[in-house]
This record gives sequence, structure tokens and C-alpha cells, in this order.
Amino acid sequence: MRKLLRVNMGELSVKEEVWPAEREPIGGRQLTSSIVSSEIPATCHPLSAHNKLVVAPGWLGGTGAPSSGRLSVGAKSPLTDGIKESNVGGNAGVALSRLGIAGVVVEGLPPDDNIRVLHVTADGTELLVDNELKGLGNYDATDKLREKFGENISCMTIGQAGEMRLAAATIATTDEEGRPTRHAGRGGLGAVMGSKGLKAIVIDKEGGQRPESADREAFNKAAKRFAQLLSEHVVTGTNLPTWGTNLLAKVINDAGLYPTRNFQEGQFELVDNVSGETQRETILARGGQTRHACHHGCTIACSAIYVDEDGEFVTKGPEYETIWAHGANCGIGDLDAIARMDRLDDDIGLDTIETGAAIGVAMEGGLLEFGDAEGVIRLLEEVREGTPLGRIIGSGAAVTGRACGVRRVPVVKGQALPAYDPRSAKGIGVTYATSTMGADHTTGYAIAQNILGVGGDVAPLKPEGQVDLSRTAQIATAALDATGLCLFVAFCMLDVPETLDMVLAMTNAHLGTSVDEDWWTELGKEILRKERDFNARAGFTAVDDRLPDFFEEEPLLPHGTVFDVPHDELDTVFDF
Amino acid sequence: MRKLLRVNMGELSVKEEVWPAEREPIGGRQLTSSIVSSEIPATCHPLSAHNKLVVAPGWLGGTGAPSSGRLSVGAKSPLTDGIKESNVGGNAGVALSRLGIAGVVVEGLPPDDNIRVLHVTADGTELLVDNELKGLGNYDATDKLREKFGENISCMTIGQAGEMRLAAATIATTDEEGRPTRHAGRGGLGAVMGSKGLKAIVIDKEGGQRPESADREAFNKAAKRFAQLLSEHVVTGTNLPTWGTNLLAKVINDAGLYPTRNFQEGQFELVDNVSGETQRETILARGGQTRHACHHGCTIACSAIYVDEDGEFVTKGPEYETIWAHGANCGIGDLDAIARMDRLDDDIGLDTIETGAAIGVAMEGGLLEFGDAEGVIRLLEEVREGTPLGRIIGSGAAVTGRACGVRRVPVVKGQALPAYDPRSAKGIGVTYATSTMGADHTTGYAIAQNILGVGGDVAPLKPEGQVDLSRTAQIATAALDATGLCLFVAFCMLDVPETLDMVLAMTNAHLGTSVDEDWWTELGKEILRKERDFNARAGFTAVDDRLPDFFEEEPLLPHGTVFDVPHDELDTVFDF
Repeated sequence: MRKLLRVNMGELSVKEEVWPAEREPIGGRQLTSSIVSSEIPATCHPLSAHNKLVVAPGWLGGTGAPSSGRLSVGAKSPLTDGIKESNVGGNAGVALSRLGIAGVVVEGLPPDDNIRVLHVTADGTELLVDNELKGLGNYDATDKLREKFGENISCMTIGQAGEMRLAAATIATTDEEGRPTRHAGRGGLGAVMGSKGLKAIVIDKEGGQRPESADREAFNKAAKRFAQLLSEHVVTGTNLPTWGTNLLAKVINDAGLYPTRNFQEGQFELVDNVSGETQRETILARGGQTRHACHHGCTIACSAIYVDEDGEFVTKGPEYETIWAHGANCGIGDLDAIARMDRLDDDIGLDTIETGAAIGVAMEGGLLEFGDAEGVIRLLEEVREGTPLGRIIGSGAAVTGRACGVRRVPVVKGQALPAYDPRSAKGIGVTYATSTMGADHTTGYAIAQNILGVGGDVAPLKPEGQVDLSRTAQIATAALDATGLCLFVAFCMLDVPETLDMVLAMTNAHLGTSVDEDWWTELGKEILRKERDFNARAGFTAVDDRLPDFFEEEPLLPHGTVFDVPHDELDTVFDF
Repeated sequence: MRKLLRVNMGELSVKEEVWPAEREPIGGRQLTSSIVSSEIPATCHPLSAHNKLVVAPGWLGGTGAPSSGRLSVGAKSPLTDGIKESNVGGNAGVALSRLGIAGVVVEGLPPDDNIRVLHVTADGTELLVDNELKGLGNYDATDKLREKFGENISCMTIGQAGEMRLAAATIATTDEEGRPTRHAGRGGLGAVMGSKGLKAIVIDKEGGQRPESADREAFNKAAKRFAQLLSEHVVTGTNLPTWGTNLLAKVINDAGLYPTRNFQEGQFELVDNVSGETQRETILARGGQTRHACHHGCTIACSAIYVDEDGEFVTKGPEYETIWAHGANCGIGDLDAIARMDRLDDDIGLDTIETGAAIGVAMEGGLLEFGDAEGVIRLLEEVREGTPLGRIIGSGAAVTGRACGVRRVPVVKGQALPAYDPRSAKGIGVTYATSTMGADHTTGYAIAQNILGVGGDVAPLKPEGQVDLSRTAQIATAALDATGLCLFVAFCMLDVPETLDMVLAMTNAHLGTSVDEDWWTELGKEILRKERDFNARAGFTAVDDRLPDFFEEEPLLPHGTVFDVPHDELDTVFDF
């Protein structure tokens, strides 16, 4: 029988609620957004006792379905002041699922300044004080936690940024090697965890087991076919495993939408230095690892282990978004430097997208030069130390824009734009503008049809058709984020209808339900409705569903286009 | 014939529009808010070319009506992202009126990094480059401007904060002695001026003359009676001239709503050190000056000249709000230290309320200790230098709260609350919550009836009656802010109906109109409607018409009250 853990930091208590496998909300983003939307007063301060940190694996988590171990983390965002679901790999999701935990809800504010650890085991859950963890980065913190709790754990931790309650702070999860390399990055959820005095959630895997399926045989059959479909699709079966996410760098740069120097240009002259091809060659030449799975049971395995010239571990990946944010966006074309920045971000607990965007804004504000890699590394260390400059950067791009008096600040709902310029791929621009999450490529990845030719083609430079494209993608993604499946399976789903059939077949076999495609679509809509409703109650209006002025006014080279999807069309994205 | 100056920084041009005396909008806040609301795209970035800085004296400006020289400055606010009218004394308003200038509108962004001066004379207006002014504080800048343009000028200038485009930056105007002591303080308008590369507006008084009135005799008669009424009222005739604005310190402290240590308490144990009584004694004992008029022709003369132990000039006033913001709000009970802070704020060009509030938040965040006066002075110098910490503070309380991870941040619409805790004077709480300007006591000064017994009595601790009180005050204030009259004449208007009759008589005699009290009320409503409309288009909703959570949750000693005016009542303030 599944359970939901209610952790009250004010009372320092943990309570278990029975939560049957098929009980709605079942899992993932469905569960986090339902609880956030129904239990948190939308206008509360994100660092107040009213906010809740909600952690939920998807309903396929732990089942052995390929790539199903993603974990949703939700709260009212300290960055956007709206609802947030941040989706993360690593092994915490699978570990929770295998202990039969549908979710963890952390409520209230602690009565004192102690640093606490939530220790989750098959035998029960307790809150422990451990002030030795105070001020540690994620790497040291997870080392200490392993010393104390043994090797057989998965951890969710915050670094110094989260302890300082900075709005770009992440929550790290540990990977197969126990390293804190996977991050619920977006929206400052680490600050929420920090405000609650919680440094770590430690999940002891001992006694965990694969959740029972209603029809195991049917499940295994569907899962096997699903894995086969993934392996046969060129993106999930070949491209991602071979080159990783950063295979996009050259594709996006060639298409003219690789945001360069704080979105001043659409192509980066040093892209070859930081491309996925170069990254793969570098890693292989040095004895690193490609085809590394971010979580147990992922068959796509699109990540990597980046090593230095001596073959020593530096960091995972780094991923496409990180290499862009710290690279082209800051005018930096040095993969080794970017890998060090990624490692620092992971250790301090910083969203690489938000942090890179903030630094890009600071560079535009004259605080340091574009291209100054050593300057960036010093800056990140300042975040760790909590210097005033570090606190500005760690508060994200919008605050950095304020402090530097900069006008070109690439944020929507206070959250920085990722690595696709919306002037030259207008479907993703619609997603950035309208997503309940603030600017977020993962909530409606129109790049697939705008640029990659996956799931059809929608001309990227025209305003026509982008709203429909984004709407469909946002609905499907919301449903997918509830399953625990990685978003990347969507590439296969878009091209091969049988993929969704297999997801539904796995769902029905596991839960004993008989849901169909209509249910799936309605699920996605229902999640979005709850999120929109929360945001409306938090004060968001159509004005918040817009890109910053400059995307509509300053043409982007090489295409010379602006973002020109009409505002009244943007306002129809959620007409369903 | 009056004229409106259109200054286009992009074209570096100045154009004159004919603007007859009675042409609507006639003046002051009516003119600034009309132009802001009708000409500026509500969603634009406040530092972009779309924003406009609008300067307008009231329609009685320069006429010799007592206390009629106030100047309205408007724009989209970089602090609130909503509409802003900031009202300031000093002599710039009278000087503009006497040159027949209804308003100055500064538009666009400059083509280069030069620092410019707008030189306004009776013979014409020109834009001049003067890079020697770059980086100067307001005191040095006005000294340089006098060297260049002679003694017979009034200046509007920005200090370093405005040049850095910080959201707490002010626009200074010079007083009778030519010192830059009066500030359009609220809402960061100095940042708008800074974004336009405009360091100063220099108004040469040569050739200025009193604007012609339609019926000079009737005007003089009404003005004389108006002056008599002001002199006979205890507040405008006795209390303000004798003790200045800071006579409120003990009154408000005794009433239990003197916000202390970032709104943690309602009474300050060191209030006697910083009271109006102590201030008056100190100033007189040292040979300073009380009863100092902030602008030419003010008969209330509620300000002062503060001198040090050697009798040397330190600063004007300081005023009640400043002494509170840097004093009780930061736990500082040292008048000399506060006077130094005021001088620094005036020189750097910082809103004393916003800056004091930001420092209070930083103190709560552990950045420095409550009561550390020398620490605050160092902090202000950091703002001048543009250090990262200085930029945080200079960006206001909300950004400081973000950077320090603080939950108790006393702002509405991003603007810091002034010196009355809304938990113990709920009428002013309604004004803070609902004002189009963000938290602003001057837009609906319910303290008059809640605490001072002027204009009747409304029990301060009860939620009943506060919405009606605030609504009436907000309407009357909006109209008053269009005239050029100082808000303080409202004390007299509230108690003596003949006062408004004389304002209307002066208006009719001057403009040749025949307006009445209904027109006056409709004018106030119309201004508020335009402001509300702008804010709605900028994305403000009912959610923005709320106080921060903690005012509704944390009881304030000594009364143990929270702010409990129902939200649905707040939503009726603008039902007219």
C-alpha cells in the first residue's frame, strides 16, 4: 500500500497518510500540482510557513518501465511567485517508489536554526538534527550522509544557495554513482527547502521493492515493447545515447536561434568548441563516459561523465542547457571551463540556466566582460560564500537586472529563458510566454516540430500554427510529467503513435485501470487547469503570458525576425 | 501662453507644444498621470525607450497661492512596475510655472553614453552634453551647474543612484538655498531619468513671471483668505511650523504604530532621542533653523535646517519619514547619525523611505545589526560606489528581501511601507494596500482621522469604516496633487470646509473657469481611474491590493492587533 509522508517542520513531526496506487492524484506533476494548488494559499510568501515542498515520483516510478524514474518537486516558487513543478532525474524517485511512497510533503517553518535531515526508511521516517551539514556543498553533504547512513542511500540535498534561500537554488538528487549531479533546477525550490531548515532527504533503499502491478505479465509485455520503440527511434535510440543532449548545440546554432551574449545574437562563433560532437570526442579521448543514465533504469542514457585531461571526474554531462547558459550566453567557448562551472553549480546548488542567464545580464550590465570564464568561476564562488554579488547572481536574472540597471532581461514570470531564442522558433516562444512555470522549454518542447522535424514540421519563423503546436505539447507534457517517464520519450511518442499506446498499456497493467487516450489528454488539461488556477489566484494575468518587449522589437540575426505571435492568440493557449 | 516641452533623447530634440492654461489635463498629477496612462505602453520595461519621464507643476504653481509650488513627477515606476506620481517641493515647480511651462516630457533613449543637461530658459530649451557631471552626487552636481549657469537657477538632478538606474533612486530639486534637499523620492524615478542619460534639468529663472490670472483681484482675495485659514488651523498654523513633520514621532509611537526594527514592534524605546521635540531643541540650541519652507511661497514652512555641534549645515529637516526609516525601523536612536544618513541619501539620490526599509530588511537578514548606525553610513557609501551590496540596497526592500532570503518584507506593489504600522491604524493600511502607487501614506492619509483627530475620528484598531475613509482621502488627494498645493493644506481642508471653497475660488479666478466641489471630486476620481487603468494594463490585480501576509498574521504590540480589513472590502475602494 502506498503512503504519503506529511512532514511538519513546525511540530517536527512525520505522519503517514495511506495513498493507494490508483488514488488520484496518482503521481508526479499531477500530485505535486494538485497539492500545491489546493493546499497552499496562492498569495503566501514562498519562504513562509504556508508554502509546502511536495516531492512525488510518477506512477510508473520503480516499476521497471524504461526511463520512468523521474521525480517531480513542487511548491510555490520563490523565483516566479507562481506554481512550480521541477522535474529531476537521479535515483531518489525510484528509491521513493520502491519504498511505496507516493509523495513527501514538507510543511511549516522550523522552531529553531538547526539543520535537519529527513531519514526515510522501509521501517519509518524520522527528522534528525545534523548541524555538521551546515554550510556544506552538495558533494561534501552527500559524502557525509553516506558516512552516516551507509552506501545504500539516495539523497536529495541543498547546497549553500538553498541554505541562503536564494531564488536560483536547486534541490540535488544523487545519481547511480551517488553523486549530487541531477537537480530539480528551476524555480528556486532549494530556497523553499532551505527555508524549512531541511538540508537533506535521505532515502534508505534497504527493503525497497518493485511496486506490485495489477497485471505483471501485461505490464512486462508493454514495457518491453515500449523499450523497443525507444531504441528504434533515431532520437532516443541513436542520437541522444551517442551525443547526449548537447548534440543540439550545432543544430540550434545552425538554425540561428542559439542565444548568444545575453540574447544579443542568434549564433555563436565558438560553437564548435562547445558542441556535442566536440564534447563526445573530448570525453572519449580522456577516458570519460558517454551514454550515462541519469537514473536507474533509463534506457536512453543521454548523459555523460566529463573528465579532465588526467581522466579525473569533473562533472556529469554537462547538458545542452548548461553548456549554452555558461557558454554562448556568456560568450564563453571553453568546454573545460564550462564543466567546472557545472560542477560548481551542482555543488553550490544553483540552476545552471538561471545562473548563466543572470551572469549574462550582469555582463551586459558591465559587471564583467563577456567571455571571462575565470571571472564567472570567481562569481560562482562568491555565491557559495554568500557575498553580496554572489547573492545577486544567486537570486536570478530578474534581480540581477534590477541591481545592474539592465533593460534586456530575458525572463518570463521572473524565470530565465532557456537555450532557444524565441524570435527564430516561435513555437517555443509561445511555450515560454504562456507556460504556468515561467520560461521553460520542457513544458511544451515545440523545438521538435519547429527545428528537429520530429512529430511533423511547423515553420519556425512564421507566427502561424505556433499556438496550436504549443498547446498540444503543453497538454501532452503535463500528462507525461505525471508518469515518471522522462520527457525524452516524447520524441518517440510524437512520431510513433504506438508509444503512447504502450504508456497507457503499462499504466493500465500496473494500476488495474482501463484508461485511454482521452483520459490522457484530459489528465494533461486538468493539471494545467490547476496550475493556471493557482497562478490566477497568485495574481497572474495575460500580461504575465508575454515575452519581454525586446523579443518583439529587436530583430535577431541571422534571420532578422522578431517574436510576432499576436497577443490575442497567446491568450488562447489554454482555451480547452 | 503655456507650453509643454517634449524632449526626445533618441533624436536629441526639444519641441514645444502649445498648452493653454485651462487645457486639460491642467497640471500636476492630473497631467503626469494622464500622459503616463495614455502614452506609455503599460507593459514596457521601465528603463526602455517607451517609458517617459513627465514633470508638471500644478495649475496654481507660480501664482503666489500659498504652498502651491509642489511639482509632480511621473513615469512607469522601475520599483513597482506600475504608474508613479512622485510629488516634490523645492523651487523647480515654481520656476517652471513662471516660465509658462505646463510640463516637460522626456522620451526615448539616448544614442550614446554622454551625460546631458536640459537647459530651460525663457528664450528656449536645449540639450547640452556635460560629461563632467558624470558620477557626481547631487550636491557637487548642483554646485557645478551653478558655476556654469549662474546662481539664478533651479535644478532637478540625479545622483549616483539614478545614474546606476537603481530602483530606489530619486530626482532632487533645489530649495531656496539652492541645495538639492527636496526629492521626488518614491518609485525610482531617478532611474528613469538615469536611463535617459539626463543628469539635470536646469531651469533659469531669468525672465520668469507670475502666470496671468483671468481675474487677478478675485484670485488675490481668495489666496489671502486661504492663507489666513492655513495660519489659523492648529496643524498648519502652529504644529507643523513649530516642530516640523517629526512632531509625529512621539504621537505615532504613543499610539503604538511606530514601526520598529523592520515592523517587528510598534514602539521604539529610544523615541525621545529622535522626536520632533528633541530635534527642535537640538536645532535651536546649535543655531540651526526651524520653520524652513521647502519651496518659495510656502506659508506652512514645516521643514528645518539641521546643523552639527559646530553649527555647520548638515541637511534639511530631516523629515519624519526619514527619521523613522533610518531610525526606529533600523533600531537607531541617534539624531546626528540619522541627519548624516539623510544628507547621504540626498547626495546619492536615494529615497529615504525605501532605503531605510531595505536596510531594515537587510538587518533582519543578518547583514548588519539593528542599531548599527556606522554600518548604515558605510552601506550608503557603498550605494554611492555601486558595490554589489550597495546595488542591492539601492534596489529597494523587495530586492533586498530576495537577496537576503528574508520573509518579512514590508512592501506593497514592490514599494516599501512608510512610518505607520497598518495593524494599528487600519485606514492607512487600506491606503497602503490599494493605492495605485504602492505603499504610500501621502495618497490617502487616513492617519488624520485614525490618530490625529483631524477631519473627524475613525477608531484605528477596528476594521470598520476604514475603506470609506481611505477612499475619500484618496480621491481628495488626487485632486489636490493636481493643483500644486502641498498635501498639508488638507489638514485644514478636512476641518474647515471654507478651505476647499478658497481652493476652488483661486482656481476659477486663475483659469477663468467656474468649477465646483463636484468637479473637484470628479477630477480626483478621474485621476485615480486613469492610474488604475494603467496598472490593470500593466498586470495588476486585486492580489496586488493586499498587504504582505505577516501584517495579517503577526499581532503587533502594544495592541496585539493584526490587519483585518476584509479583502472583499479592500476590493471596493475604487467602486465609484
